[in-house]
Amino acid sequence: MKTSKEYKQSLKKMNANIYKFGELIKDVTTHPATKRTVEGHAQIFDAAQKPEYKDILTTKSGLTGKPVTRYLSILKNADDMISNVKMKRLMFNLTGTCTGGRCAGFNALNAMWAATYDIDKDMKTDYHKRLKKWLENAQKEDITISGALTDPKGDRSKPASLQKDPDMNLHVIDSNDKGITVRGAKVMICGVAAANELFIMPGTGYKEPDKDYAVSFVIPRDIDNLTIVETRRPSDTRELEDGFDNPVNIGGITQAYLLFDDVFIPKERVFMNGEYKYSLNAVMNFIAPYRAAIGGCVAGQGDVMIGAAALMARANGISEKVFREKINKMIINNETTFGLGIAASALGKKHESGVWIPNPLLSNVNKVHVATLPYDTKRIVQDIAGGIGETGCLPSYKDLNDPKYGELLKKYLKANCTGESRAKISRLIEWLTIGSGVPGCMHGGGSPDGAKLVINLQTDINKYMDLAKRLIDLKEDIQVEKK
Amino acid sequence: MKTSKEYKQSLKKMNANIYKFGELIKDVTTHPATKRTVEGHAQIFDAAQKPEYKDILTTKSGLTGKPVTRYLSILKNADDMISNVKMKRLMFNLTGTCTGGRCAGFNALNAMWAATYDIDKDMKTDYHKRLKKWLENAQKEDITISGALTDPKGDRSKPASLQKDPDMNLHVIDSNDKGITVRGAKVMICGVAAANELFIMPGTGYKEPDKDYAVSFVIPRDIDNLTIVETRRPSDTRELEDGFDNPVNIGGITQAYLLFDDVFIPKERVFMNGEYKYSLNAVMNFIAPYRAAIGGCVAGQGDVMIGAAALMARANGISEKVFREKINKMIINNETTFGLGIAASALGKKHESGVWIPNPLLSNVNKVHVATLPYDTKRIVQDIAGGIGETGCLPSYKDLNDPKYGELLKKYLKANCTGESRAKISRLIEWLTIGSGVPGCMHGGGSPDGAKLVINLQTDINKYMDLAKRLIDLKEDIQVEKK
Amino acid sequence: MKTSKEYKQSLKKMNANIYKFGELIKDVTTHPATKRTVEGHAQIFDAAQKPEYKDILTTKSGLTGKPVTRYLSILKNADDMISNVKMKRLMFNLTGTCTGGRCAGFNALNAMWAATYDIDKDMKTDYHKRLKKWLENAQKEDITISGALTDPKGDRSKPASLQKDPDMNLHVIDSNDKGITVRGAKVMICGVAAANELFIMPGTGYKEPDKDYAVSFVIPRDIDNLTIVETRRPSDTRELEDGFDNPVNIGGITQAYLLFDDVFIPKERVFMNGEYKYSLNAVMNFIAPYRAAIGGCVAGQGDVMIGAAALMARANGISEKVFREKINKMIINNETTFGLGIAASALGKKHESGVWIPNPLLSNVNKVHVATLPYDTKRIVQDIAGGIGETGCLPSYKDLNDPKYGELLKKYLKANCTGESRAKISRLIEWLTIGSGVPGCMHGGGSPDGAKLVINLQTDINKYMDLAKRLIDLKEDIQVEKK
Amino acid sequence: MKTSKEYKQSLKKMNANIYKFGELIKDVTTHPATKRTVEGHAQIFDAAQKPEYKDILTTKSGLTGKPVTRYLSILKNADDMISNVKMKRLMFNLTGTCTGGRCAGFNALNAMWAATYDIDKDMKTDYHKRLKKWLENAQKEDITISGALTDPKGDRSKPASLQKDPDMNLHVIDSNDKGITVRGAKVMICGVAAANELFIMPGTGYKEPDKDYAVSFVIPRDIDNLTIVETRRPSDTRELEDGFDNPVNIGGITQAYLLFDDVFIPKERVFMNGEYKYSLNAVMNFIAPYRAAIGGCVAGQGDVMIGAAALMARANGISEKVFREKINKMIINNETTFGLGIAASALGKKHESGVWIPNPLLSNVNKVHVATLPYDTKRIVQDIAGGIGETGCLPSYKDLNDPKYGELLKKYLKANCTGESRAKISRLIEWLTIGSGVPGCMHGGGSPDGAKLVINLQTDINKYMDLAKRLIDLKEDIQVEKK
Repeated sequence: MKTSKEYKQSLKKMNANIYKFGELIKDVTTHPATKRTVEGHAQIFDAAQKPEYKDILTTKSGLTGKPVTRYLSILKNADDMISNVKMKRLMFNLTGTCTGGRCAGFNALNAMWAATYDIDKDMKTDYHKRLKKWLENAQKEDITISGALTDPKGDRSKPASLQKDPDMNLHVIDSNDKGITVRGAKVMICGVAAANELFIMPGTGYKEPDKDYAVSFVIPRDIDNLTIVETRRPSDTRELEDGFDNPVNIGGITQAYLLFDDVFIPKERVFMNGEYKYSLNAVMNFIAPYRAAIGGCVAGQGDVMIGAAALMARANGISEKVFREKINKMIINNETTFGLGIAASALGKKHESGVWIPNPLLSNVNKVHVATLPYDTKRIVQDIAGGIGETGCLPSYKDLNDPKYGELLKKYLKANCTGESRAKISRLIEWLTIGSGVPGCMHGGGSPDGAKLVINLQTDINKYMDLAKRLIDLKEDIQVEKK
Repeated sequence: MKTSKEYKQSLKKMNANIYKFGELIKDVTTHPATKRTVEGHAQIFDAAQKPEYKDILTTKSGLTGKPVTRYLSILKNADDMISNVKMKRLMFNLTGTCTGGRCAGFNALNAMWAATYDIDKDMKTDYHKRLKKWLENAQKEDITISGALTDPKGDRSKPASLQKDPDMNLHVIDSNDKGITVRGAKVMICGVAAANELFIMPGTGYKEPDKDYAVSFVIPRDIDNLTIVETRRPSDTRELEDGFDNPVNIGGITQAYLLFDDVFIPKERVFMNGEYKYSLNAVMNFIAPYRAAIGGCVAGQGDVMIGAAALMARANGISEKVFREKINKMIINNETTFGLGIAASALGKKHESGVWIPNPLLSNVNKVHVATLPYDTKRIVQDIAGGIGETGCLPSYKDLNDPKYGELLKKYLKANCTGESRAKISRLIEWLTIGSGVPGCMHGGGSPDGAKLVINLQTDINKYMDLAKRLIDLKEDIQVEKK
Repeated sequence: MKTSKEYKQSLKKMNANIYKFGELIKDVTTHPATKRTVEGHAQIFDAAQKPEYKDILTTKSGLTGKPVTRYLSILKNADDMISNVKMKRLMFNLTGTCTGGRCAGFNALNAMWAATYDIDKDMKTDYHKRLKKWLENAQKEDITISGALTDPKGDRSKPASLQKDPDMNLHVIDSNDKGITVRGAKVMICGVAAANELFIMPGTGYKEPDKDYAVSFVIPRDIDNLTIVETRRPSDTRELEDGFDNPVNIGGITQAYLLFDDVFIPKERVFMNGEYKYSLNAVMNFIAPYRAAIGGCVAGQGDVMIGAAALMARANGISEKVFREKINKMIINNETTFGLGIAASALGKKHESGVWIPNPLLSNVNKVHVATLPYDTKRIVQDIAGGIGETGCLPSYKDLNDPKYGELLKKYLKANCTGESRAKISRLIEWLTIGSGVPGCMHGGGSPDGAKLVINLQTDINKYMDLAKRLIDLKEDIQVEKK
Repeated sequence: MKTSKEYKQSLKKMNANIYKFGELIKDVTTHPATKRTVEGHAQIFDAAQKPEYKDILTTKSGLTGKPVTRYLSILKNADDMISNVKMKRLMFNLTGTCTGGRCAGFNALNAMWAATYDIDKDMKTDYHKRLKKWLENAQKEDITISGALTDPKGDRSKPASLQKDPDMNLHVIDSNDKGITVRGAKVMICGVAAANELFIMPGTGYKEPDKDYAVSFVIPRDIDNLTIVETRRPSDTRELEDGFDNPVNIGGITQAYLLFDDVFIPKERVFMNGEYKYSLNAVMNFIAPYRAAIGGCVAGQGDVMIGAAALMARANGISEKVFREKINKMIINNETTFGLGIAASALGKKHESGVWIPNPLLSNVNKVHVATLPYDTKRIVQDIAGGIGETGCLPSYKDLNDPKYGELLKKYLKANCTGESRAKISRLIEWLTIGSGVPGCMHGGGSPDGAKLVINLQTDINKYMDLAKRLIDLKEDIQVEKK
């Protein structure tokens, strides 16, 4: 398994195809727009070697029996999935934010593990074998894979094949013995700058006319004809500045637009090509572990928020015990999403291919909580922190170090600690709650409304009515006329 | 294992010592104040024989290897505890309410399994052996045991030994070779009327001067000098009436005051007698599974509420789909408490005695949800049901059958079903949300404030602060002066 | 103005036509099923004579200039409406519950004041004059009027004229020079037993074919061919018992089914007869003050809950200060609904007839809060009270006074006060939160979903979009295709 | 009254003493760090001249009878205060954010109007006369005044006079016939860059030893020895860029640190100097209208959020009707804080000096809602908007206009409108919910915990207990021992 140094080396060697602010990023490991997310991902390699984290971050390969990073493993039982939830929480603890270049890739791998199995079984294709072979090598090379699901979609009221512009969803424009050529885009893709390869998932809602859109494959990040543009995030230009106004240097997020301008993918890296009937299940199997594990993510960031709030209270000269009820609420929020992730893991089922699929009802219930509870947690941090934390309302690092008035500013920032410490803690709270450390968890892995839809689909209302009818011994069959 | 008929026979054979409204209840299986709770408990025996429920309701005895009811088993791993949470949900599904004569007994047994092991190990006593022996016989006889924890307590600001009246907590007044004699009371004890035996837990907060209060034992319900008085519940006098104003006949609750007027217990049934240092842990080990599993209880009743709400919508001529968002919220509430119960089970730990102890942090987080979410669920049922369900605002069964105006009332109650069906569904909603089907889950197994206290005790705030400090590389040690 | 004694005399003189449990109630002032609501209403007369409450409960008649009860006045400005909100809060403070025999009548009077004015103006009828004349006499006699709005409705998916049974909404079956004859029912009508007269409102949603359903009038409660059946409420049979299990004797609720079996109403008491176009506005003008003032009602009961919770804390030996955060939340809940009632009053508008109509948007926003916040308040009371308050889990009054074990029960109920005091406070909490003191505020004056519908109708989404477009200087007109 | 052009001229004429990022801002009307807030404030002057807004933004001077901006008026009755709440909502509608350079000044003026009256009455000083004279001139010149309350405070556990550094609260270091000299700072002061003068309030919690800290005065913003440093806000460096990544050009916030390095104030501008007993009331009278009116502020921004969410839905090709329930919730949130502001206004009281003081209980209840409901509203906007709105996850303006890939990005941003329109709406949502448009309302005018403290002080728990005791006729006096 790679060291963090080797990991960074592997990124340095890749061709430059990522842009931000009109500029080509030559080296993602040193450019201020991407270096923090690389540092965050690098921590995975470092932590994997520490005894206290090893069991969480690594496992034994089902293919070779050798130790591999958990991010390149196939989930085979409830315990694997529970470890996955814990791993997400740990990585947010260590980086303060999302290491998104790995988890969507991990989910894509597992979802396509099942999908390729099913397709092959029905269609006599060899996708599963291709995937297995690719994975064996990926484990050997210990690469980092980012996953990509979201298409631009265009007008949400129309399917892919009826869009005015056919490119609004990624699609195959040519397919032959050697491979396929694709055009379109994937958008809002996390952690691309920190990845060696990109695992592309199909979208969903595809029928026969949309079959060119049912496509899945894996590519090197720096493949020909792929242009990557990083998006903005709150306060992202601070990352180009010096000093602690960007308080965290060992973690960071990137989210990219991937522009596929007729990219060729050799067939051994293609895992779906037209089998549109399997795309829904592929996506469902992607979101089940995603929406379970994300409960660990937001709990992990919530842990940091508890710490930041308690520190700020002390910095202001107030014991954190004064805020016991509020800190309790933060803990409850964290443990609720974490716990539901664990529960979804524990009550999952084994797919015929060997993959463990978490319980979809509990996963999606968790997604709804993930779309609300962390907002409450952020609000509480700002509440405890006072005005200085609410909007990061304090002068800039540059001003704090201004020769004319910098000392005065620091004097007035002092409370129960130095002005500089208080400024740093405030900036951390700003970063976590309203700055560039805020991950896109509400819509990451799909929207809460999508989750509610799945909850509905998982629910047989008649079973509930039967319980009630049995209790009161009601025989009348009550139906509502359809209109 | 017993049939439900044999179970009822076993109750009939016992001596009468239960009172309500000043009247001695001669036969708990037929008296209107107790027969519904007996019917509810009897369903456990019936369901245990059905293939679809067998795995949930029975298990293999760790003592004899024979099949036993899960309620008389020792939890030995996460799966056992997960089944326990599912069993609670199932029984609320089948009875609409609490079968409280079993779960507190089950928790008491498991908690004292660990406690007696620890006491024996340190003190060279033989409590654990006694308990084992008693349990072996209990399994053989397949008896029903209710558990009793809550003392009257008197002035909450003072410990047991400093109460003006020493009897405010159950205590040993005499102890000799043959056994012990106790005086005092246990209050608000669920399901006593449906039980063959009572498992008495010690209270907590005991120190050396309170050692006579640290006492645990198991007794037949009809032991000499024990007087039992059943408490009132909302709308409980309806149970004495005929007709569907009391809508459920296959489930019901009782909660009793147990008055120990110098009760003698032979020593082989005594499992703690003065070892006050072990009472806190005994209670902690009681509440951990209790507060995990109660998430299944309230989810199980919530399931019935979903069904009742959907039925009422249809009865009013409205498809339940109109209320999709609200029904979704009810599902989310149910799955949240159920899921956290599962999570606490999955992340538990094995005690040296072999008992599986659920995760105390997650159990207690769940208790806080159990004290809030079901209230929201009840509110939503009433919201969907309309005014008729909110306070059960419709004429009595007697009036609906009045020769003068009964037919007119039924005519006006008609909507998308007969007036009678609509009346029954309304009464079910009343019973579930504001009637005698409402269980005391907020304080059952201890108060939510108590749960928050445990959450605090489980939390090391410094660990959280260290996460934050590491992220911003803060070296200053910020302490608040103690005052 | 009447004294409470004269008020009760006026009720005694009326003919008996109210039934409960199959029994004709001969004297509503002494029968246990109705006497408590009569006592509650009687307090209005007593309080009106006290200097501290006089300004809230009385005003000057706009017709005669003489002092009259506010319940028989026309609201003419914001201050009148503000006093109305305060009056509701006061009466809940004094009776612990709803004095529903007055407020719906008051709202009906005011709503029909505007409606009759509009009808007369357009149709050259003389309804307004009739109403004025009736009101003048009502003020002179100082009578108590209950209001009735809700029809049985039958299948909610069909209008009145398409119901299988034409009687599912109250309707005119004969109309001549002398008056009209009506058939049908009004259901869930509050405080009928405490009223001298009943003010009948039309329903809503009526079109030309439904015009016989557009009818409004006022009648003596004991009019010929009207049969009244009281509905059940939680724990209502306790009202037939002695002792403090029914803890409040100076307040109570009744809700009745009114069966109109061809009732004749002389024309001078008829205020709408077929003018279906005006029924929607009549109902809108009914609900605007209703949904504003009900914020005062639930706040008034919330005040009692705060007091009960604080008393219970002390009874248990705990200072209410321990529960500061929770009591704060209860205060916030109370003041929110009260405040929004005040705001709706302050921002109302004057109708051409002289009636002040509260702001419909704020009134309906308040209705949504009234359907949620009081549930939270009740939950908190139960939380503070402990298990004894949650479901009123203590032995009955009869048991507490049993010669055999009553003393023992009282001994064990003792805490920081006598067992009897503690029992009474517990019963009050039960009565307020899960007993017969719970008013039907969620659906009283219409459902929260109905309120949300009004909120939507009051909202012009384009105005909001224009604000956003102006800020970002967006010129593109973005429309969604209709399907 | 000034035009917006004259207003800007008046700012241009002032001396430069404001810094940001180490740079002296020469002209606040053109510098990118301050010009947007100036534009926002300038809109007040433009709107005041429009017939539809005139009554809200202007009133008649109580001093001269001439029309004046409402921001320079004394609130004399409930209607004035209601107009104030509406004015706040209007200005947030027009600017999308806070025009903080006026409201704190307005509140300071009104609070000191009462305080100076009281001091003069007791101490025979002439502060009130000075204030009147200054105000007359301020109205004549139609100046803009910002208000400043918050001191750096240092260690929150110690009073001003016991701080290690005496400057942690602004204080008088010299006082003579001509005036006073002050040292210290005021921090997090809103809208300073848009103001002509600054109205300084005293802090609170002052006793005899702290009397030098009890000081109030008004100064030109560019007074000698005053250094102003603007603080950072989320994404504030975008304001230095071109294009719509900073989507709003007609509104903006600034929050400043004011460093008083021995500033001399002539006595006619001093309104408190050592009268420490009056500082608490002064601050209470400042926060009552502040915490009432802020309900209008957040509602006004909430209105814009509703519009932005509906626009975004349409931009995505989805009718906003799909999100009816969510938009309803936003409306309810907005009207709740607005309505409670109105209620506090309506139920206020007149101070002897003629100032109308809003109801402190309702004001402070509102503050608690202001600290929670807008967070919910922001969450809902992000929910409706999708991933693109949650963290503003789309490429920068610069990238969208990149010659190489800009067109492709715009193509993929297209949905039911041009890519550019969709980008602009997304940026507005980012700006409103997690960008530089987020005002500091949770702690502005004091923290929610401070508000809860006032709620407690306004509450006599005994009154509530008396209500409960009267209902159950409880005579026992239950007290808890003090310890």
